[in-house]
Amino acid sequence: MDSDVRTVRVAVVGATGYSGAELTVLLARHRQAEISSLFSSEGGKSAPFSRLHPALAARSGPGVRPFRLEALLESAPDAVFLATPHETSAELAPNLLERGMSVIDISAAFRLKNPAVFEAAYGFAHPAPQLLTEAVYGLTEWSGDRLLGARLVANPGCYPTSVLLALKPILDLLAPAIPVVCDSKSGTSGAGKKADLAFSFSELSENHKAYGVSGHRHEPEMLQELGLAPGTPFSFVPHLLPIVRGMLSTIHVSFAAPQTAEDLFSRFAAAYAGSPFVSVRPHGEMPDVRSVANTPNAAIGFCLRDGGRRAVLVSVIDNLLKGAASQAVQNFNRVFGFPETEGLE
Amino acid sequence: MDSDVRTVRVAVVGATGYSGAELTVLLARHRQAEISSLFSSEGGKSAPFSRLHPALAARSGPGVRPFRLEALLESAPDAVFLATPHETSAELAPNLLERGMSVIDISAAFRLKNPAVFEAAYGFAHPAPQLLTEAVYGLTEWSGDRLLGARLVANPGCYPTSVLLALKPILDLLAPAIPVVCDSKSGTSGAGKKADLAFSFSELSENHKAYGVSGHRHEPEMLQELGLAPGTPFSFVPHLLPIVRGMLSTIHVSFAAPQTAEDLFSRFAAAYAGSPFVSVRPHGEMPDVRSVANTPNAAIGFCLRDGGRRAVLVSVIDNLLKGAASQAVQNFNRVFGFPETEGLE
Amino acid sequence: MDSDVRTVRVAVVGATGYSGAELTVLLARHRQAEISSLFSSEGGKSAPFSRLHPALAARSGPGVRPFRLEALLESAPDAVFLATPHETSAELAPNLLERGMSVIDISAAFRLKNPAVFEAAYGFAHPAPQLLTEAVYGLTEWSGDRLLGARLVANPGCYPTSVLLALKPILDLLAPAIPVVCDSKSGTSGAGKKADLAFSFSELSENHKAYGVSGHRHEPEMLQELGLAPGTPFSFVPHLLPIVRGMLSTIHVSFAAPQTAEDLFSRFAAAYAGSPFVSVRPHGEMPDVRSVANTPNAAIGFCLRDGGRRAVLVSVIDNLLKGAASQAVQNFNRVFGFPETEGLE
Amino acid sequence: MDSDVRTVRVAVVGATGYSGAELTVLLARHRQAEISSLFSSEGGKSAPFSRLHPALAARSGPGVRPFRLEALLESAPDAVFLATPHETSAELAPNLLERGMSVIDISAAFRLKNPAVFEAAYGFAHPAPQLLTEAVYGLTEWSGDRLLGARLVANPGCYPTSVLLALKPILDLLAPAIPVVCDSKSGTSGAGKKADLAFSFSELSENHKAYGVSGHRHEPEMLQELGLAPGTPFSFVPHLLPIVRGMLSTIHVSFAAPQTAEDLFSRFAAAYAGSPFVSVRPHGEMPDVRSVANTPNAAIGFCLRDGGRRAVLVSVIDNLLKGAASQAVQNFNRVFGFPETEGLE
Repeated sequence: MDSDVRTVRVAVVGATGYSGAELTVLLARHRQAEISSLFSSEGGKSAPFSRLHPALAARSGPGVRPFRLEALLESAPDAVFLATPHETSAELAPNLLERGMSVIDISAAFRLKNPAVFEAAYGFAHPAPQLLTEAVYGLTEWSGDRLLGARLVANPGCYPTSVLLALKPILDLLAPAIPVVCDSKSGTSGAGKKADLAFSFSELSENHKAYGVSGHRHEPEMLQELGLAPGTPFSFVPHLLPIVRGMLSTIHVSFAAPQTAEDLFSRFAAAYAGSPFVSVRPHGEMPDVRSVANTPNAAIGFCLRDGGRRAVLVSVIDNLLKGAASQAVQNFNRVFGFPETEGLE
Repeated sequence: MDSDVRTVRVAVVGATGYSGAELTVLLARHRQAEISSLFSSEGGKSAPFSRLHPALAARSGPGVRPFRLEALLESAPDAVFLATPHETSAELAPNLLERGMSVIDISAAFRLKNPAVFEAAYGFAHPAPQLLTEAVYGLTEWSGDRLLGARLVANPGCYPTSVLLALKPILDLLAPAIPVVCDSKSGTSGAGKKADLAFSFSELSENHKAYGVSGHRHEPEMLQELGLAPGTPFSFVPHLLPIVRGMLSTIHVSFAAPQTAEDLFSRFAAAYAGSPFVSVRPHGEMPDVRSVANTPNAAIGFCLRDGGRRAVLVSVIDNLLKGAASQAVQNFNRVFGFPETEGLE
Repeated sequence: MDSDVRTVRVAVVGATGYSGAELTVLLARHRQAEISSLFSSEGGKSAPFSRLHPALAARSGPGVRPFRLEALLESAPDAVFLATPHETSAELAPNLLERGMSVIDISAAFRLKNPAVFEAAYGFAHPAPQLLTEAVYGLTEWSGDRLLGARLVANPGCYPTSVLLALKPILDLLAPAIPVVCDSKSGTSGAGKKADLAFSFSELSENHKAYGVSGHRHEPEMLQELGLAPGTPFSFVPHLLPIVRGMLSTIHVSFAAPQTAEDLFSRFAAAYAGSPFVSVRPHGEMPDVRSVANTPNAAIGFCLRDGGRRAVLVSVIDNLLKGAASQAVQNFNRVFGFPETEGLE
Repeated sequence: MDSDVRTVRVAVVGATGYSGAELTVLLARHRQAEISSLFSSEGGKSAPFSRLHPALAARSGPGVRPFRLEALLESAPDAVFLATPHETSAELAPNLLERGMSVIDISAAFRLKNPAVFEAAYGFAHPAPQLLTEAVYGLTEWSGDRLLGARLVANPGCYPTSVLLALKPILDLLAPAIPVVCDSKSGTSGAGKKADLAFSFSELSENHKAYGVSGHRHEPEMLQELGLAPGTPFSFVPHLLPIVRGMLSTIHVSFAAPQTAEDLFSRFAAAYAGSPFVSVRPHGEMPDVRSVANTPNAAIGFCLRDGGRRAVLVSVIDNLLKGAASQAVQNFNRVFGFPETEGLE
């Protein structure tokens, strides 16, 4: 590392979960991040980071330790990434902000602006509702300059990331009375690293299922970021795929007026012209999960139907990267004014 | 086999494809079917049926041979199952019907009633359009008594089977101006037994993709059987799952008037009261692929949303069984007046 | 069911585990078994048997209940299948035998003859060591007439079943000083139905691993049944495959004198001439897991090397069927004098 | 790229096969390699490299073209990587060497030293047998300083890489009369990118099989590099796993004299002390495929048995990286005197 490059000291809490481990690898490669400390509730139970990533171990500081607030503070990070349960993030973030640290939260603790909607979705009253307004929703490509210098970034959920990237460029074209249908499919790593019969290989291999059909927590997040009132007709159904990584959302929309392939492509292309991680496919060509798995990229395809009155969109991401860890690094880069692609190429 | 049980002599053309092999196994177990001959274009290349199913080999006649019409005729079947390409079925069926045999066709050759729609979907002019009207569309549960004594049965496609079973009981409730969205996911065996890089393990494992987004051949079949004019807003998108067997359709509908869970359940239950192979789940409980894979069963789940103004339906089948082979046997049983479950328990 | 067919009343304890559920399905189809009661520690947590197998539910008695000895006794079974943990089987079996019931135990509780070897392998002193000698080791094809009328049958482990079927016919040909190497690979269902991070889809998909390398419990069982003293050079290593069902053992042997393909084939063919569930492949043709998955069959292939001085054997079974449930039914048929294939075709 | 860093111009022939694409990605990241040209027989059929790897496209030159020798020569590479069929490599390499280019061949064309052994294994007479002696066998960790400045490097096969890394450190300890048993399992990508029913998802999912049991081409390569005469008792059996990437070899060895865990660990540790990509696990801890998949690393585990008279070794690599592409880059670095880890971290 060149001595004249500005570096930011970073800590990760939850460094051995699926998203946290991806994040730690990315940060260890980041030329302007210096890892000050890594914490995990798994403690010594998981394979040491140094074994999984021997080439990076030298850059990952003193290794992964059981979380203790004092140890985190002693390590004096400038920025803390929280890859922790919602409750933990909600309790921890105010504490860290008070001490002048920046917080990038990968949990859902600060994604929703309305405390009542939060409580309905997550089942507990938010302990720091005053921060909900301040938190910047970190869908990087749509955050403008709100991220630069932000104290608290709420990293979006994986489902909302895949859906919002496809819908936001064409939102004003949609027929208001016809529900948008988001049929989303996720790999199993989205459920986190846990012992659960329902997520065992024996139950999931050669299987496929819908879940959360009566209402998934990510739906109010989508409505909020689409600027739609709760209760707007909107049909989001998540499904579990027998794959580990990756997410594909198939989105069925109706337009107020017929569209052409050229106009739609132009809209998408214009929306993501300056975005290094979002690509748009030519009309009719749909990206598959493989084309973005293990990358920080999103890809969007679209196909008109019914003479342009309707369209099917397909949006794919790696749920652990663009849906969590790499988007957190994009946001980190924006907060500190680094190039957006640093650590992600 | 009791000597006083009436038996029907059956032949299978295409007995080593994925659906054909399932069908042959079912027929070899059927107490009122006697296998007269089995044919396959693979000839000696595939593992002999007797090796895959040693316990059934004794009942499967002289083994699988390369197809020759003379050999088929010599074996003097009463009924012929065609698990052949569309073109082959379309050419062969008239020939067999003339000789007084019954034909149950698993291909798409006789599913569509309108020759023009057929030609647009399958790319060739139908060689026997006069039979399209006569053919009975064999969605068994909705065929009433048209199957009894039918000469020609068109076995439905796998996607239409999964979609129609869920939609037909509630068709009159739907809001006319709002498109029905059918987001369907299939295992790879639906593509048949073939050498194709796109269906290789290396390309499909840990992958997922949409295909046929600009219009799949099964969509006109669905519209026909739903009684909807071509061009009615309807959004069917098929996807490929990294599983071998099974199909799950997620169907998003809007109602003309709000519905209750009780009313919807009653409708489904009434529709399938006498159907041994279709089960309906309680409100909010969605069946997964595993619950019907390797069985002749279909299962339907539903969940109301927006105060009953909309619903999500999930319909699952084994694409090779209820989506092909076991439905063909259900139809065979109905044609010859056997109990519907014979050979399928 | 004909009224003049002799029936045996059977109970299953552990009816919702992976092996227990397979066993229950087989027994519900068995024309000479009448299900008196089904028990499971899962109680109401698992999907009811009637939902998974609606066609069989009518024949499966009063449904699956939480286990209570009184309820079992009240149901007055003639034979009890134990698909329970080793400890449970070891405690329960003596109790049932005293009341005159036959016991077929799928656990390892009665497989080993030597109590000291048992304690070393399973970590607890056997509570009924006097029964170890009486228990008939139920590798059906090698049990001769010891099964007929047996009170207590110890169903073999899945790994021993696959290894012993291949080795027993050629045991006297082996070079004594050279270790037999058994490199075995199992699907995940062999570990049972449990919540365990190590068996989660996210950890096992696209993965493969060896385990138990310092000595697996099934190794002393193999040595016992091969008639080899503990400590005989023998290298058994189990591996975990990313599949749910099936087991393949690759066995590397050296002969005392060179063999020919014809002689070896004759030996295998003679050993299994009367066995409906074991097939032997021609020299050089190796069976794969798929060829026996979801069937009660075992298949054996062999290939000579080094001018007949060595051979590689491949033995495949479905671990839940021939490795557990269907072999238990074979044994049940032998105990009660029914045809060996009853319930298994 | 700093202007004062020495760069080498490289071409890749076969840039869209599974190994070739991995290689191209690594070279595009390599700070001292400049891509002069990329060729593929797939031509326009495969997804453009720029779509799969948009971030790297800018560094990958004029894109992938159908192979023409003139175009390759015009691009004036210093080194050419051949990810081509054996026959193509054997014909092409002499041509390129004559023009002063270095050649790193990923095919098997130059791995075997003895032309007769080559012809027996690969079925055609080698067109340039004089080069077999000159070619440096590129098992990087065991190549000493033969790679520096080498004109022609034969990149090892994936199976030999996994087996040799584990066996070479302990070769002199083995009991001479007892066969080494190498039971190896590979992901499907090892078979290359091809349309073949036997490698279809429908045939391989939930399946596992042994192949090449009568003698696989990689066995003479192993014997050569172990210094064993053809015909030495040695039992290598490859298997196909239902995973895309990764390889695990389980190796069963007998020692001439009993060993201790400490001595064996010391041997392995000493052998790989300076090797950044080979790690050795503590006694009894076996690495799984996941721990090296998508990395250039190999990991070795070992476990003593029978009082140290025998051992089981487990060796894992990513077949496309350490088994092909990343080892080619290691060799490239050694040939040109670059740090061994350049492009691989």
